[in-house]
Amino acid sequence: MNFDRPTVRAGTHQVKWSAAEAALGLRGDDPLPMWVADMDFDAPQFLQDAVVDLARSGILGYFSGLDACSEAVANWMRTRHGWDADPAHVLYTHGLGNGIAVCLQTLSEPGDGVVIFTPVYHEFTTKIRRNGRRPHECPLEVGADGRFEIDFDALEAGLTGDERIMLISSPHNPAGRIWTPEEQRRMAQVCERHDMILISDEIHHDLVLPGQTHVPMPVAVPEVTDRLVVMAAASKTFNVAGARTGCLIVPDDTLREKLQTALKASDIQPNIFGVEITREAYRQGAGWVDSLTAYLAENIRVFSEGVAEIPGLSAMPMQATYLAWVDFAPLGMSPEEVSRRVVEEARLGPSPGPAFGTGGETAMRFNLGTQRARVEEAVSRLQAAFADVQ
Amino acid sequence: MNFDRPTVRAGTHQVKWSAAEAALGLRGDDPLPMWVADMDFDAPQFLQDAVVDLARSGILGYFSGLDACSEAVANWMRTRHGWDADPAHVLYTHGLGNGIAVCLQTLSEPGDGVVIFTPVYHEFTTKIRRNGRRPHECPLEVGADGRFEIDFDALEAGLTGDERIMLISSPHNPAGRIWTPEEQRRMAQVCERHDMILISDEIHHDLVLPGQTHVPMPVAVPEVTDRLVVMAAASKTFNVAGARTGCLIVPDDTLREKLQTALKASDIQPNIFGVEITREAYRQGAGWVDSLTAYLAENIRVFSEGVAEIPGLSAMPMQATYLAWVDFAPLGMSPEEVSRRVVEEARLGPSPGPAFGTGGETAMRFNLGTQRARVEEAVSRLQAAFADVQ
Repeated sequence: MNFDRPTVRAGTHQVKWSAAEAALGLRGDDPLPMWVADMDFDAPQFLQDAVVDLARSGILGYFSGLDACSEAVANWMRTRHGWDADPAHVLYTHGLGNGIAVCLQTLSEPGDGVVIFTPVYHEFTTKIRRNGRRPHECPLEVGADGRFEIDFDALEAGLTGDERIMLISSPHNPAGRIWTPEEQRRMAQVCERHDMILISDEIHHDLVLPGQTHVPMPVAVPEVTDRLVVMAAASKTFNVAGARTGCLIVPDDTLREKLQTALKASDIQPNIFGVEITREAYRQGAGWVDSLTAYLAENIRVFSEGVAEIPGLSAMPMQATYLAWVDFAPLGMSPEEVSRRVVEEARLGPSPGPAFGTGGETAMRFNLGTQRARVEEAVSRLQAAFADVQ
Repeated sequence: MNFDRPTVRAGTHQVKWSAAEAALGLRGDDPLPMWVADMDFDAPQFLQDAVVDLARSGILGYFSGLDACSEAVANWMRTRHGWDADPAHVLYTHGLGNGIAVCLQTLSEPGDGVVIFTPVYHEFTTKIRRNGRRPHECPLEVGADGRFEIDFDALEAGLTGDERIMLISSPHNPAGRIWTPEEQRRMAQVCERHDMILISDEIHHDLVLPGQTHVPMPVAVPEVTDRLVVMAAASKTFNVAGARTGCLIVPDDTLREKLQTALKASDIQPNIFGVEITREAYRQGAGWVDSLTAYLAENIRVFSEGVAEIPGLSAMPMQATYLAWVDFAPLGMSPEEVSRRVVEEARLGPSPGPAFGTGGETAMRFNLGTQRARVEEAVSRLQAAFADVQ
């Protein structure tokens, strides 16, 4: 895979490019959308081939074969993540957005609180609200090393007693913080003490940068598995979110039975293309992911070093994902002025930080899942837009 | 399209063939599964091509373009069904099984009754029960012409007052009865008088046999649209149910808003392949459907004439679908004896009638969506298995 190969996405069905003007006001010469979390790279050739073969089989009706997919999921968890997952513990949802919704609907009641660590993936809050639950924000601190940290004392002191779920992003979106086993243990302990279900959204767990290690929650804290749902998918890793297929891996029998019952009541069964893609991604994709993360690491280096040349600015140090986080607060400019420079002047379209909740007010999230040349171009435009900063 | 071309389905991912032994006990020489409602024909070439082109675009992430799909849906309803549907009224579900579930969850409360006309598609009852609602069966009569008929007096006399939804299969599965505009008007009037939502599952409405006409509910009874949900999909017509994409077409703003809100809360958005298939099926598929229904009509003739040669037996006269209904009651045999002869002796795997509810006790549903040669073989095996009948 040559990740440098230019791809044209303007005018296609990729929402990152087609909706950037309507959503962000991004326009002008050569705009660079850097918001929606998918990459400008083509889906891997072997996944294209798998879909082509399936289409050419002509057999696209009611299908069997989920067991083979679950085997591939479990094998991937074993070989890539050191997690001896059981294929029988894998449930399928209509993408992980649907997976979060089903968990909220099934494992909490309307009005219940759901603990989230902000700034975080904006859909957490949206889903919690749309299901009549209460987002209970626990704002992250920025530690001495510049990375997000959880203030566990503040977390426990802030609980009101009606929180039934803790929903974590692991590795964390934005900024790709990998939670250490010790941090995961402390999160799990809070869930134990306050009788919360722990939902570990590990959709980014494959996008771990070279030299870094992510430990899945059930490996870091085996004793939390009786109250644990792990969410995983090939969608983010392999840039195939349109297939809308995700997995809930649920070791506890009672919890899994509840979710299975809810999925059956709503007739949530995966689609034939999503199953094909998931199975083949996990069977064939290891080498592709290794190449991808190596490429992303260099993108991140280029971006971070470039941003650091603007006095006062820095991208948060990353351990995973391609979603960089830049807080513009040190510049002392209003968010409107920052947006004017970034979106109008530099023609860049990052995700505005406020959508990520408390802590995101003055920040922006930059999607670096693109060709190196575009990252370099984005850096040079950013530097130009803030050239007057001393 | 050469519908006579033999296809091999044994040992593939098609559930009709792969699960027939486990589900029906079908085994032995050259078994012929005739249960699950998909056809042994390959998905149309132009849909295979559409999926191949999409896969080869390499752009399989978050996507835009639903409006074009909704335009194609509306245009199909206009040109094929004389229904001036509004593209803005089209909602997408994760297949129509999911569509039924979302309607039940959103438009009724636990414990409410849901009126169904039995024998009917077994998933109606399953979905109603799994969502904690009460299936309220209104058994169909068999009229003088041998077709199903509704006893409207019995229907109204039997209502208990807690029925909030009437869920109809139109054309009716099994046996492909097309409800006349007058019958549809009387159903709608019952819904008006008893304040029920009317859900018209028209998934089979394209599979209307030559010379027959199906009138969509909103055309037959325009004044019922303020309490109407029409369900439609390319899945059954084009043999692509694995894509799990269906449409709810909801003319009433309040009703549509309720359903839209529920779909957003659960993050039910269609997958990229299902959208591609739906759009291209409705854009390009008219000729294919005409060829298909002509072929199915001949299959039905062969099957019906063959069954009629067994003294006492007949297939219910059909107007639509490929799902024939044979009631074995006139033979005076126990259901076990009928099953022994059909499944063990003739090695045929139709759907057992009891799953379709009251009225299905002694019947079987035969899927005729297969090559003519297989229909002829099924007929001759049936005749042999009942050769001793006088």
